[in-house]
Amino acid sequence: MISSGSVCIAYETVTASSGGLPLLTPMSEVAGRLAPQVGAHALEKEAGGRGVLLGGVPGAPAADVLIIGGGVSGTNAATIALGMGAQVTLLDRSLEVLRRFATQFDGRVRTIFSTRAAITDLVTKADLVIGAVLVPGASAPKLITRTMLKTMKQGSVFVDIAIDQGGCAETSRPTTHSNPTFVVDGVVHYCVANMPGAVARTSTFALNNATLPFILQLADKGWRQSLRDDIHLRNGLNVCDGKITCKPVAEAHGLGFTPAESLFD
Amino acid sequence: MISSGSVCIAYETVTASSGGLPLLTPMSEVAGRLAPQVGAHALEKEAGGRGVLLGGVPGAPAADVLIIGGGVSGTNAATIALGMGAQVTLLDRSLEVLRRFATQFDGRVRTIFSTRAAITDLVTKADLVIGAVLVPGASAPKLITRTMLKTMKQGSVFVDIAIDQGGCAETSRPTTHSNPTFVVDGVVHYCVANMPGAVARTSTFALNNATLPFILQLADKGWRQSLRDDIHLRNGLNVCDGKITCKPVAEAHGLGFTPAESLFD
Amino acid sequence: MISSGSVCIAYETVTASSGGLPLLTPMSEVAGRLAPQVGAHALEKEAGGRGVLLGGVPGAPAADVLIIGGGVSGTNAATIALGMGAQVTLLDRSLEVLRRFATQFDGRVRTIFSTRAAITDLVTKADLVIGAVLVPGASAPKLITRTMLKTMKQGSVFVDIAIDQGGCAETSRPTTHSNPTFVVDGVVHYCVANMPGAVARTSTFALNNATLPFILQLADKGWRQSLRDDIHLRNGLNVCDGKITCKPVAEAHGLGFTPAESLFD
Amino acid sequence: MISSGSVCIAYETVTASSGGLPLLTPMSEVAGRLAPQVGAHALEKEAGGRGVLLGGVPGAPAADVLIIGGGVSGTNAATIALGMGAQVTLLDRSLEVLRRFATQFDGRVRTIFSTRAAITDLVTKADLVIGAVLVPGASAPKLITRTMLKTMKQGSVFVDIAIDQGGCAETSRPTTHSNPTFVVDGVVHYCVANMPGAVARTSTFALNNATLPFILQLADKGWRQSLRDDIHLRNGLNVCDGKITCKPVAEAHGLGFTPAESLFD
Amino acid sequence: MISSGSVCIAYETVTASSGGLPLLTPMSEVAGRLAPQVGAHALEKEAGGRGVLLGGVPGAPAADVLIIGGGVSGTNAATIALGMGAQVTLLDRSLEVLRRFATQFDGRVRTIFSTRAAITDLVTKADLVIGAVLVPGASAPKLITRTMLKTMKQGSVFVDIAIDQGGCAETSRPTTHSNPTFVVDGVVHYCVANMPGAVARTSTFALNNATLPFILQLADKGWRQSLRDDIHLRNGLNVCDGKITCKPVAEAHGLGFTPAESLFD
Amino acid sequence: MISSGSVCIAYETVTASSGGLPLLTPMSEVAGRLAPQVGAHALEKEAGGRGVLLGGVPGAPAADVLIIGGGVSGTNAATIALGMGAQVTLLDRSLEVLRRFATQFDGRVRTIFSTRAAITDLVTKADLVIGAVLVPGASAPKLITRTMLKTMKQGSVFVDIAIDQGGCAETSRPTTHSNPTFVVDGVVHYCVANMPGAVARTSTFALNNATLPFILQLADKGWRQSLRDDIHLRNGLNVCDGKITCKPVAEAHGLGFTPAESLFD
Repeated sequence: MISSGSVCIAYETVTASSGGLPLLTPMSEVAGRLAPQVGAHALEKEAGGRGVLLGGVPGAPAADVLIIGGGVSGTNAATIALGMGAQVTLLDRSLEVLRRFATQFDGRVRTIFSTRAAITDLVTKADLVIGAVLVPGASAPKLITRTMLKTMKQGSVFVDIAIDQGGCAETSRPTTHSNPTFVVDGVVHYCVANMPGAVARTSTFALNNATLPFILQLADKGWRQSLRDDIHLRNGLNVCDGKITCKPVAEAHGLGFTPAESLFD
Repeated sequence: MISSGSVCIAYETVTASSGGLPLLTPMSEVAGRLAPQVGAHALEKEAGGRGVLLGGVPGAPAADVLIIGGGVSGTNAATIALGMGAQVTLLDRSLEVLRRFATQFDGRVRTIFSTRAAITDLVTKADLVIGAVLVPGASAPKLITRTMLKTMKQGSVFVDIAIDQGGCAETSRPTTHSNPTFVVDGVVHYCVANMPGAVARTSTFALNNATLPFILQLADKGWRQSLRDDIHLRNGLNVCDGKITCKPVAEAHGLGFTPAESLFD
Repeated sequence: MISSGSVCIAYETVTASSGGLPLLTPMSEVAGRLAPQVGAHALEKEAGGRGVLLGGVPGAPAADVLIIGGGVSGTNAATIALGMGAQVTLLDRSLEVLRRFATQFDGRVRTIFSTRAAITDLVTKADLVIGAVLVPGASAPKLITRTMLKTMKQGSVFVDIAIDQGGCAETSRPTTHSNPTFVVDGVVHYCVANMPGAVARTSTFALNNATLPFILQLADKGWRQSLRDDIHLRNGLNVCDGKITCKPVAEAHGLGFTPAESLFD
Repeated sequence: MISSGSVCIAYETVTASSGGLPLLTPMSEVAGRLAPQVGAHALEKEAGGRGVLLGGVPGAPAADVLIIGGGVSGTNAATIALGMGAQVTLLDRSLEVLRRFATQFDGRVRTIFSTRAAITDLVTKADLVIGAVLVPGASAPKLITRTMLKTMKQGSVFVDIAIDQGGCAETSRPTTHSNPTFVVDGVVHYCVANMPGAVARTSTFALNNATLPFILQLADKGWRQSLRDDIHLRNGLNVCDGKITCKPVAEAHGLGFTPAESLFD
Repeated sequence: MISSGSVCIAYETVTASSGGLPLLTPMSEVAGRLAPQVGAHALEKEAGGRGVLLGGVPGAPAADVLIIGGGVSGTNAATIALGMGAQVTLLDRSLEVLRRFATQFDGRVRTIFSTRAAITDLVTKADLVIGAVLVPGASAPKLITRTMLKTMKQGSVFVDIAIDQGGCAETSRPTTHSNPTFVVDGVVHYCVANMPGAVARTSTFALNNATLPFILQLADKGWRQSLRDDIHLRNGLNVCDGKITCKPVAEAHGLGFTPAESLFD
Repeated sequence: MISSGSVCIAYETVTASSGGLPLLTPMSEVAGRLAPQVGAHALEKEAGGRGVLLGGVPGAPAADVLIIGGGVSGTNAATIALGMGAQVTLLDRSLEVLRRFATQFDGRVRTIFSTRAAITDLVTKADLVIGAVLVPGASAPKLITRTMLKTMKQGSVFVDIAIDQGGCAETSRPTTHSNPTFVVDGVVHYCVANMPGAVARTSTFALNNATLPFILQLADKGWRQSLRDDIHLRNGLNVCDGKITCKPVAEAHGLGFTPAESLFD
């Protein structure tokens, strides 16, 4: 890229005035909403699961879904899991997040303050565990240990939304849409990297909506003026004029770093 | 069975004082709730679908789900499809059923009086069509014709809950859990016979709940007294004392029919 | 009463065309709605309970409320317990009742088919058990045994709405509003006879609404014509013209029975 | 005003610490809630509309309501349109706004990212279009062109909440409460300036609530001290001591501008 | 009609196996849903009302809507009035109806047992009174007396859905869509006969749905066989072969009555 | 404490980056949720109340609950009061708070802008008044005067959540869990100091969740480094190294004040 002279803007470092990474949020939404769907499928007998229906039926109990992490993915996962009739429990370390869940879901989600003890206890009861722990710019913590896994129900399912950041279970390793699951200690793991690819049409619309304002700006003003005017787009710049303008990338590759600002005065 | 001298009671002919077939209802509930789940899976790219997420995400539209038939299966299918965030439309020929949907789902399901014209129009817009047309004791009507199929979206999905009664599309043919779908005219067909087997654990609990009162009665009073006392159980009797006591079965096999009542006085 | 020559109509035997006992239903509604309220109070430390709040708060779990019996009382108890934020489980032997709960409460109440095994398991997890088992015209069955009681949590609470029919626990015995609870095996029992008296104003309005149509009829037509015209009011007649017109009462006292009809031709 | 020596504070330039224009917000709320009500009325045959009921009835489809803009007015319009049973679609250019709608209305409002293509497509399907596009301090953009209008259904209705900023359709022109609508290309336009006047009693209460804190402050401390202490009230000052203290007003009239701050030291 | 030899089937006497008059129900649904809409319009200043918005806005109170009668019209009126944000109170003489409202609207409608005292009290507090008292086959009772009217708020509104049965206020008299309201004692009366005509398109769809099964039957089997086979259609027969087959009609006109059955053997 | 050399950190002055006092919020949540529960109990006849059930029953009106103040306590009180079926009115002086209530409770809470006139009017209609007026770091204002009290209903109940800040009625004085209420002018006052003690188990979990992050930090880094790194924890420091580091405390006791920052460089 450096030698090509290209202007390289990375989706994952563009920022927003409201905080967060606006070009990644839509993918977190899609992955979060997919998680209960793929988890429900993995719970079917044919897929190796214990043969339970998320919502049960009157007289036969609903499945227990445990969501670890209440960010964008976790919130979307909870929405769909509740809609499918599951009993949903959320673990998070932020009381603010737990309060937001209590209000948004009107008490339908059980909210538990996340500790190692709480995770250890709750995974043994869950039919479906959804790992939605995203630490921006860092590897996901390994919250589900191998030891915990052995205590889970046979045929229960673990969906690791954090797989793109390395996964939040010790046993997680990336899989593909064509071969999405593997079993460890009787627990079906769904660890597909790039989950949103499963619903490519929806994901494309979602992503286009997020990128369109930047595209229009680039088309209207040209890349140089756009990068000069818009600090959030500029934060996305990684390579320009043969120079690396993203510090972590420069450091990771042991190359020199040039502040983006210095290129646009 | 006749020569074995067995007392044969069939789940599908036991009746209930409130009407309906109480030992089949739980399976209709399970199949109805599974339908949006298997449909959502079939809509994924890997499964051959058009790659849409039932609920969409904010800014990217939700999928259109069309449910034909508002009985037990259709009602349960609507519950889960709504919960997954889809736009749900119900077709039924009974205004009473449409009114029940309007009340139960508080206006969230679009209710349309079912006519051939309405079906023809609505299938072209649907991402997922769920056939839930059950005519007790008869073949399902072929409401989705081959001609209609050609007008549907490429990669849309048809789930035929009525497959055990022959299916409600001209192109339906039974499939299995290990090979659940096939494609005709670009439409993915899911026509698994015995859908509840996918969630065997939930289905077993559901069925046990329904049969338990009869089992207890049989254990307490013996079969002869139970059949004498309980007209609904007796309606389930098909073969007894080497005689056929179910008229349709007798007629279908060209054998003699003996009223069950005559055996218990 | 017999010697007085009074015309005695008993609230508890007046019937309705829609079935049920219309003059008792309002009291079942009131008692059902009171049950979570008095249970929540008994769970406070001062009252001897384990000091849990029905709804918990975000991050601290809600209490588990187990309701046994899904009739009028149980349905009203579930409404209020859910409203107070509890996790509610219903046990009933009728699938129709469980389905009605699933629909009415939109999946928020866990519905379990009632068996001895289910009761035995669930009482150990409950913070509050509400006994709402009403068998019309019979003693309540003793569903909570002394053995089960010993497995319950210390400081958990049992509210027995069925106390007026003898109670549905082996350890139930009637108490009063001024001294409403007692403790057995660490479980606080609330067994107040005539629970609706706690909210006398509401109960009076409720009862007046139910009796008013009969009162107006009596005022308009006189008792004799009213009893002649209205089979449901006549079913309420217990003593008239010095004769007992209610068969169970006559039998219970070993006295002669005169059909009410014979007095009004 | 200048020669009068009055102290002139304008409702529309008073600000709030939370952003926005606190004395205009109540009127946006009222106008937003009125929009579906006046739109529903205009859809009646007598008023020239196509004779559809917003909510339809079971079996007869609900009307499609398209709301353009998800600010205060648009949010309030969506609340009432949903409550009247319509199918509601929101167009907005902010994903944050679309996400807020998705959460607040629990998936009941279809949220679409606003582009010219989306508007062009959606107006053809709508029975009622509500223009709620408010750009603070600027004319409303003409999002509905004359060309689009010709593609709309005969008898459909357009309610222009933005009429006080010039309207958001090319064909909008202000009307009055006594003669509220006119028809262009078969589309009924409701463009009443000062919509809240229709419900003067409610509007007065709403406005009083917003102004009361300022009134109390003026009464307690006098206008001079109040304007000195409170930057938000001071932002509302337009004319004082014979000078214009609001820059846009001064510029619009080609008169001199005096910063308000300079008058209160 | 008699001399014409026509076969005359009247919509208003066709019956249904589930009870009720199936060809009138859709019109009751439409009228019920229209009532809050036309009431809200009449509450606008221009229409003579007191200028209140049904839903108020935060901080300014919602309007009080009183619905008298909880049948089909009243239930639909409550649905829409709640959706528009009003505080809704229902009066009915049937506890079963009040309980259905409590369940269906989840406690959002205040349910009061209807007595003259209750009506007298509640009309003084209401902004909008909706008369939905339908006594099948009889004149509506005059529940709102002239005396009560004088105690109502100036500019309050009364919508009389029962106007086609004579209206349920002493002051009611039929009006038209082009001149829908009149004022008595400061209360705006909306008494349009044939309310559903306001939304002719929706009403036509609704009515067609209800009549279609009968039309298909007539087309398939001819009128004679259809009337022979279907008791509900036959109940609709008023004139046939020059004879009057509807007893009330015959009596009202002092003409001879011929049972319909006698014509089809 | 000063002479002991202890490091004294006070729960009530620790701050949070999101504003507010994070170690007090859980207690406000618990107290708010308890308020309708203890109020409902006090409304029972035995407790001296007027004998009304918060939710009423169908046909008998629900109780009117008036909540003064829409902060954390008031919001939680509203949640539970609504859940118990009461008619809830909120008074607050902030339109932002009233709007949040309108959205969060979907129009189920009546929101009124708080003025002395509004309070004076509304207390006369309430069955239960909940005082939730919390002014951080100040005595609660005496919003309920003795004069108002005399206009309230006999047997109505006042729960004063603000009692720990002196109470918001002129007649409030602290009570205990063992003797929680007293009566003035016929109004039952519940003014228990430390309400959360009633549900000690829930309160302990709630408080532990809030304190845990600070505890972990202290355990990991020692108190000195933690206080140096974390301004919010440091704001909680009251006494350290024999010096008073909290200005209000120093002033209240007429002792010297040492800024906490000066101790950690």
